[in-house]
Amino acid sequence: MPASDPSQAPLGVFDSGVGGLTVVRALRELMPQESIVYLGDTARVPYGSKSPDTIRRFSVEDSQFLTGHGVKAVVVACNTATAHALPLLQATFRVPVIGVIEPGVEATLSDPRCERVGIIGTAGTIRSSAYQYALAMRRPGLQIHASATPLLVPFVEEGWIDHPALKLVLRQYLEPLLEKGIDTLMLGCTHYPLLMPVLKKMLGKKVRLVDSASTCAAHTRRVLEERKLLRRGRGRPVLDIYLTDLSEQAETMARRFLGADFGRVKKASL
Amino acid sequence: MPASDPSQAPLGVFDSGVGGLTVVRALRELMPQESIVYLGDTARVPYGSKSPDTIRRFSVEDSQFLTGHGVKAVVVACNTATAHALPLLQATFRVPVIGVIEPGVEATLSDPRCERVGIIGTAGTIRSSAYQYALAMRRPGLQIHASATPLLVPFVEEGWIDHPALKLVLRQYLEPLLEKGIDTLMLGCTHYPLLMPVLKKMLGKKVRLVDSASTCAAHTRRVLEERKLLRRGRGRPVLDIYLTDLSEQAETMARRFLGADFGRVKKASL
Repeated sequence: MPASDPSQAPLGVFDSGVGGLTVVRALRELMPQESIVYLGDTARVPYGSKSPDTIRRFSVEDSQFLTGHGVKAVVVACNTATAHALPLLQATFRVPVIGVIEPGVEATLSDPRCERVGIIGTAGTIRSSAYQYALAMRRPGLQIHASATPLLVPFVEEGWIDHPALKLVLRQYLEPLLEKGIDTLMLGCTHYPLLMPVLKKMLGKKVRLVDSASTCAAHTRRVLEERKLLRRGRGRPVLDIYLTDLSEQAETMARRFLGADFGRVKKASL
Repeated sequence: MPASDPSQAPLGVFDSGVGGLTVVRALRELMPQESIVYLGDTARVPYGSKSPDTIRRFSVEDSQFLTGHGVKAVVVACNTATAHALPLLQATFRVPVIGVIEPGVEATLSDPRCERVGIIGTAGTIRSSAYQYALAMRRPGLQIHASATPLLVPFVEEGWIDHPALKLVLRQYLEPLLEKGIDTLMLGCTHYPLLMPVLKKMLGKKVRLVDSASTCAAHTRRVLEERKLLRRGRGRPVLDIYLTDLSEQAETMARRFLGADFGRVKKASL
């Protein structure tokens, strides 16, 4: 790309694994003209169970990889990394760095009737309290109920997204939140958009579902617009997928999360 | 320890996480006089979903850490690492390196009536075919049915080892094996000994259960005996636990797997 036109550069997206491809899917639906470089740190997945220091170190390495590929912005498509590393990344890198938490929080609060919010995510995301703080800071008095739901990622990865056992697990996890009378449920993990159908069936219309993938994509478009970084349709957009560890299993899951096929995955060494 | 008496050195044990502490537990029950240095690679857990090359690289680093602490033998308390890295580790290090697969295979075949064997484990262990090959080589004609059961580790880690959803998951995983008429079920993952009670209840007496932790401990004692490396009771044995990433969650699980409390966990940098 010519140095004079940074809007032609690709968007960078990273996640601890392939789950962040749900964000790529949402980005491509909203901005089909953008090229994207995706990095999935499959050699060190998951981040959710690791300590904040380790998560920050990994996130800086992931972002360095992307900026090394000339991206115009970095999307942190991982709730755990956003929770622990976003301010550090924003202070470290010159390109805009966008997380998955703020956009979901904004979308949740855009409905003025929202009074009682439930949040589900990995142990790391919930323990970080990042969602809880972001909500409470913007709307004091809001009732917030957060719950770690570590079994959901493995069910999604197994592909059992409509299995009776999953429904029992979801019931066990959601029962306490429903008893609190939540009107909104935030899906604080990039794997969870694949649970939308079963959650909609279970919760009906009484609970609004907010997922991080589509809200993050909408926020990213606003940021690119403001900075005049939206790519105008010259040439075909490219999707490059790098993983730090290649396996058949990861590629199968990647296809499921992206909702589309893709070319060769490349191996990244950090 | 004096250079003249290597039997006084500690045993080294490594695993991708804290699940290998079920092997430490079995080792301590069998050889309470032995000191042990344990390394759990919690920063990079799990190994099961990673590629063979990556697993081998991690396993060499783990073993180097232990030999750097002067251990007299290395126990690979991780099925995935044993499956992919054992021959490489045995060729690389001068101390005996003991895996978790051969001992389970020996124990299984010690019953001459055994005709149809089921094996469950992580995707990585099953895909490696290490159990399948080891069994088939020693007893040609044996019927072997292996099945990847990736949801079991998360259930054990969540502590839901008697949950109705776990029973549905187990039923789904075991049904095809039971239909094949297995007489023995090998638990090819260090997390699974904690599922013994629910499995015994489900399978009754018709299926013999063989777990890798206790069979590995028995094998380790034989190796130490042969090499005159068994420690004779001088001084109190020490258990040192190193993890590559520290978190409250990992320590809680570590206690559960070890079945006992322990002192401060130390952080290891590889």
